[in-house]
Amino acid sequence: MNLQDKASLLSGRDFWSTKPVGDVPAAVLSDGPHGVRRQTGEADHVGIHESLPATCFPPAVAVGSSWDPAVAGRLAAAVAVEARALDVQINLGPGVNIKRSPLCGRNFEYYSEDPLLTGVLAAAHVEALQAGGVGASVKHFAANNQETGRMRVSAEIDERTLREIYLPAFERVVKHARPATVMAAYNKVNGVYASQHPWLLTRVLREEWGFDGVVVSDWGAVNDRVAALKAGLDLEMPGNPANDAMIVQAVRDGELDEAVVDRSVARVRAMVRAWRPEPAAFDADAHHALARELAAECAVLLKNDGDTLPIRADVQTIAVLGPFATEPRFQGGGSSHVTPTRVDSPLEEIRRLAGDRVVTADPDDADLAIVFAGPADLDESEGYDRAGLDLPAEQVELIRATAAAARRTVVVLSNGGVVSLEGWHDEVDAILEGWLLGQAGGGAIADLLFGVAAPSGRLAETIPMRLQDTASYLNFPGEQDVVRYGEGVMVGYRYHETAGRPVRYPFGHGLTYTTFAVSDLTVRVTGDDSARVSVTVANTGRRYGKHVVQLYVATQAGPVRRPARELRAFTKVGLEPGRSTTVTFDLDARAFAYWDVKEGRWLVAPGDYTVQIGENASAVVAEETIELAGEVIARELTLDSSVGEWFAHPQVGPVLMRHVAATMTEEQRAAAAEHQDLLRMIESLPMHQFLSPMGVRLPDQAVREMMELSRRPQ
Amino acid sequence: MNLQDKASLLSGRDFWSTKPVGDVPAAVLSDGPHGVRRQTGEADHVGIHESLPATCFPPAVAVGSSWDPAVAGRLAAAVAVEARALDVQINLGPGVNIKRSPLCGRNFEYYSEDPLLTGVLAAAHVEALQAGGVGASVKHFAANNQETGRMRVSAEIDERTLREIYLPAFERVVKHARPATVMAAYNKVNGVYASQHPWLLTRVLREEWGFDGVVVSDWGAVNDRVAALKAGLDLEMPGNPANDAMIVQAVRDGELDEAVVDRSVARVRAMVRAWRPEPAAFDADAHHALARELAAECAVLLKNDGDTLPIRADVQTIAVLGPFATEPRFQGGGSSHVTPTRVDSPLEEIRRLAGDRVVTADPDDADLAIVFAGPADLDESEGYDRAGLDLPAEQVELIRATAAAARRTVVVLSNGGVVSLEGWHDEVDAILEGWLLGQAGGGAIADLLFGVAAPSGRLAETIPMRLQDTASYLNFPGEQDVVRYGEGVMVGYRYHETAGRPVRYPFGHGLTYTTFAVSDLTVRVTGDDSARVSVTVANTGRRYGKHVVQLYVATQAGPVRRPARELRAFTKVGLEPGRSTTVTFDLDARAFAYWDVKEGRWLVAPGDYTVQIGENASAVVAEETIELAGEVIARELTLDSSVGEWFAHPQVGPVLMRHVAATMTEEQRAAAAEHQDLLRMIESLPMHQFLSPMGVRLPDQAVREMMELSRRPQ
Repeated sequence: MNLQDKASLLSGRDFWSTKPVGDVPAAVLSDGPHGVRRQTGEADHVGIHESLPATCFPPAVAVGSSWDPAVAGRLAAAVAVEARALDVQINLGPGVNIKRSPLCGRNFEYYSEDPLLTGVLAAAHVEALQAGGVGASVKHFAANNQETGRMRVSAEIDERTLREIYLPAFERVVKHARPATVMAAYNKVNGVYASQHPWLLTRVLREEWGFDGVVVSDWGAVNDRVAALKAGLDLEMPGNPANDAMIVQAVRDGELDEAVVDRSVARVRAMVRAWRPEPAAFDADAHHALARELAAECAVLLKNDGDTLPIRADVQTIAVLGPFATEPRFQGGGSSHVTPTRVDSPLEEIRRLAGDRVVTADPDDADLAIVFAGPADLDESEGYDRAGLDLPAEQVELIRATAAAARRTVVVLSNGGVVSLEGWHDEVDAILEGWLLGQAGGGAIADLLFGVAAPSGRLAETIPMRLQDTASYLNFPGEQDVVRYGEGVMVGYRYHETAGRPVRYPFGHGLTYTTFAVSDLTVRVTGDDSARVSVTVANTGRRYGKHVVQLYVATQAGPVRRPARELRAFTKVGLEPGRSTTVTFDLDARAFAYWDVKEGRWLVAPGDYTVQIGENASAVVAEETIELAGEVIARELTLDSSVGEWFAHPQVGPVLMRHVAATMTEEQRAAAAEHQDLLRMIESLPMHQFLSPMGVRLPDQAVREMMELSRRPQ
Repeated sequence: MNLQDKASLLSGRDFWSTKPVGDVPAAVLSDGPHGVRRQTGEADHVGIHESLPATCFPPAVAVGSSWDPAVAGRLAAAVAVEARALDVQINLGPGVNIKRSPLCGRNFEYYSEDPLLTGVLAAAHVEALQAGGVGASVKHFAANNQETGRMRVSAEIDERTLREIYLPAFERVVKHARPATVMAAYNKVNGVYASQHPWLLTRVLREEWGFDGVVVSDWGAVNDRVAALKAGLDLEMPGNPANDAMIVQAVRDGELDEAVVDRSVARVRAMVRAWRPEPAAFDADAHHALARELAAECAVLLKNDGDTLPIRADVQTIAVLGPFATEPRFQGGGSSHVTPTRVDSPLEEIRRLAGDRVVTADPDDADLAIVFAGPADLDESEGYDRAGLDLPAEQVELIRATAAAARRTVVVLSNGGVVSLEGWHDEVDAILEGWLLGQAGGGAIADLLFGVAAPSGRLAETIPMRLQDTASYLNFPGEQDVVRYGEGVMVGYRYHETAGRPVRYPFGHGLTYTTFAVSDLTVRVTGDDSARVSVTVANTGRRYGKHVVQLYVATQAGPVRRPARELRAFTKVGLEPGRSTTVTFDLDARAFAYWDVKEGRWLVAPGDYTVQIGENASAVVAEETIELAGEVIARELTLDSSVGEWFAHPQVGPVLMRHVAATMTEEQRAAAAEHQDLLRMIESLPMHQFLSPMGVRLPDQAVREMMELSRRPQ
């Protein structure tokens, strides 16, 4: 391969395929991830032109609420089959960006506000997709948390926040599932385009996490092709002959080492060769049935006063209302938009189960009314953010009028991002948060309403009282091409719980048709920075159901501000009535660690850690506190270290105390005795000032010896 | 003067004086600003060793609540006389840092959470002090908003926030009052020590604001002496022979231009010569009386149910309780600590007015109880921050027990920083927020309680419901040597009003013993970015009183997030009952402007501006909206500009629209018609991507012409 050939391999042939060059065949990529968007005619990356029919499975917003990696995995396995049927080698997804604000227009493509939940689900998706022979593309790396100005906005994020919130889902997927590709985002991170960010694409992704696949650009995300290549971006999509030529020119000008080109060529070649599964056929009916089964795992029963749901057989008239009853919203707009093989009508599916008890107008005197509501299609899409959380006014009116007229009212929500429940929440009896459930969502909703299936979804994101109560409210979506992540690690429930800000429904909330009890929490310390936790869960109700055991860790250990609690493990268990099971979690260092910017690594501080089992992020039902030895950092002392640090040093502190006592004058002793606040006042002084002619006079030799002492291995 | 002499002039002789060198005499500096801390024996800068007696006037926390520049001015004029009596040429102060968090240990030395209120009061202080012949030192420049880690913490602040919140008070003082010196702070700003920050000390302070005085270090704030000198720090305090030698060495090594030394020498020389007032004597009794009069202007009557205050002559038994009744807290700890000439006892002053109606124990059946409460001395000091907002538990208990026993209960608070009123607020009848009122505060409190004087203070800072409700809660005091100002410009009431966060008492709140009505608001646009406002205020009650007219501006104009409203003008008027007056405000561009980081300057955006008269920051009593022409910024378009910017450009937009329409295929037209969301989706695309082979194909020539058009002066 000559230089020109190599360069040409590093960008697409067209919108959706790489170039066949020499011994390297072309590879087809397609949008995903909850279905295959395979275009064979006019192409685009915002979901405008047609694509071949494929099953539209539940989007990530719904899968997030399943809290079940098996759901993500079964979905991805089916997508792999369809991808093979449609001649696709790489399916783009999953999207693992964190939901920083409910306004992000693309939240329906992301799983959660929590990095652990996101990472576990995404890793399961990637593993299953790739086990099916189709490569994944984890996206959008990194900090692509809004659509406003996404092509050039700089996300200004401190490193601890990146490490603890915005990177861990990528890290988990890369380390656990080895995705074929990682997709570099459009936006800048701290002033540098993600697509040409050496720290992100090479230092962190490859050197720290060991990623050995291809970094592909988001479609059109490359700005400076040579800088991107140097930073670690291998493949530019779609094709761009001008940029190919720039690569050649840069090598010729000596600005770019050809070895850098070779490295990316090798990666693209390896990728194309690795992902060439046999073609397959898919059974549209079977996949539709799977989509229905998975969707039922995702919906969240938010409220169910008086056991309104499941709808009992003795309910005589059931009014079904709202435009989405017949024209369901089941996916969002943009690149992930799938042409479905068919679409369930919720009304028809309800009729199948309830027969002629169903009426579709005039809820007066209906025993029960089901109102389908949600924002309009145009309110939620890739490419722009939402303007607010409210449902359309006419829908709120419909809900309230219905609640006033019908004996009981159930609201079924279809929405990609969180909507406000204020203004009508208290007037209805039950709320089923359906998110966007894919093409079989209508059937799943009917199954859940009538108890054919039991709801088991849990909120993967907080439902706030008001937009103003959300962590990023002041700083979303930023201004003048900069968005400051001013809330730091306090995202989602981390914020609400830490700042004591009330919510309508907390992260992790979800009801079902039976009840569960948690008991026998035991926490055993298994090392300096690890613990084993077990807890027993029992189905104390009368029906089969699934329960999500949520394990949070709460601590104030270390020199950084910790969130009130953080999700550190979870599992979903299904139990028959009267049965119980004991689940065990092994918590490693990461369950207790914070990112220490001074040490540049994860660190478990010595101290108390409370392991909490939460019914949700706000309701702790069992907890136990352990003490971890962690890691004591005795930093080397210098004259710039503070007086407080000197006195606090385990070896040096006592020595210093003796020296100081010896040199104090009578008046100084008296002053010190009188001014108990003195030490607090001087704690923050740098040592050189404490030792200045105006301060305490210690022999130079003594000071040198103490600094020497602080350098010795402890 | 040889080089050595010059260098030695640039640091102190000792703690409190500069060196006499050649024809330049020594100058004495002393701590201030609400009194003179003149040490002649052992010296220190944290208020430990003794100082000569001087009048302790109300600290800035109290003066802030006066909302009256005359109070600040009369105080400073008296301090000038005492400084001259004590042979002081430069009195350090005022402190104009913004109260970012109620926890800042030094808030008692600062005026307000609002930059305008701070700047107006500080300018009045400096003008009066300097009119009295004594130089001022405006401090601490800049962003010294906490004590924790103050010697090395880096305050990470975006430029708009610096310009709109943390710098304007300094700017106003420098431009309006020409202070002798500006004091560089200990902390870092965006990674660079304030004491060696060229942008702060030279670019902004001198080049933009025209400062021509001396920049002096906070005591011990110099780290790298040569870097500090280059950055614009003239005088290091206290003395430091080692650093003097470094200056000499740097010049000899060619690392430092001697002209830089000469420039600072000239400034120090000019300062020492300019501020050599005649000695004066001061009348301690007269100053004490003045301190009492001023203190009465500062206290804020927060609550006064059933006209409990002023205490009527027919109230038979008055119980006076709490430790501060006899041992008042009237100033804070640290460098501003003054040795008072005498101290009023609140109890004795109350006795003077109420005679034997006063009892000091057992409030059972008292007609009225007065409880003096506040945090302990050690809870509030320079050098460290507060741990929380709560009053000591035993005081809360005393208040509640008293309220349960006495017929009526009045709480008088003595505190340097905001304390929580929760847990007891609703149980008492009246609350007088006395802050720290100086040595004559006891007399002032008595005057206010019995109606000898009427309260006229207004809150200069919000009293929140909970610490968690404050803007900086998540980011104060930072961690690992960095504090991120994540709330941006949303400080104090700007946050509470914008985020709809309830408060106990809003900024600007304060009651008095009469009532006022506001009427006839008229707002007249006087230019593209200015307006004249007039409003009539009437005393509608039965006693003389003072009212603070507060003018806020609310707007959403411009490309940045604006606070819900911002204080843009105010004045305090005194009126006899039945009288009214019309006040007029001329609002210039700064009343409407935001700091535009792209233009690097203040900018008034075209749009609607609502001028609001507020009883306080939460209660608007009159408003009128005007439209300002402002300034239209038509930025030059490039291929990196977004599609949205191209279409929005006043000249280019229509041209582009015609070109695009002409090139669209039938299918594209159909797609565009079907996808109403298309334009919203592509708005953020950079133009080069819109024009890529995958997008719209426009002739190069047409694109060039449009860019050319955008460059033409409009």
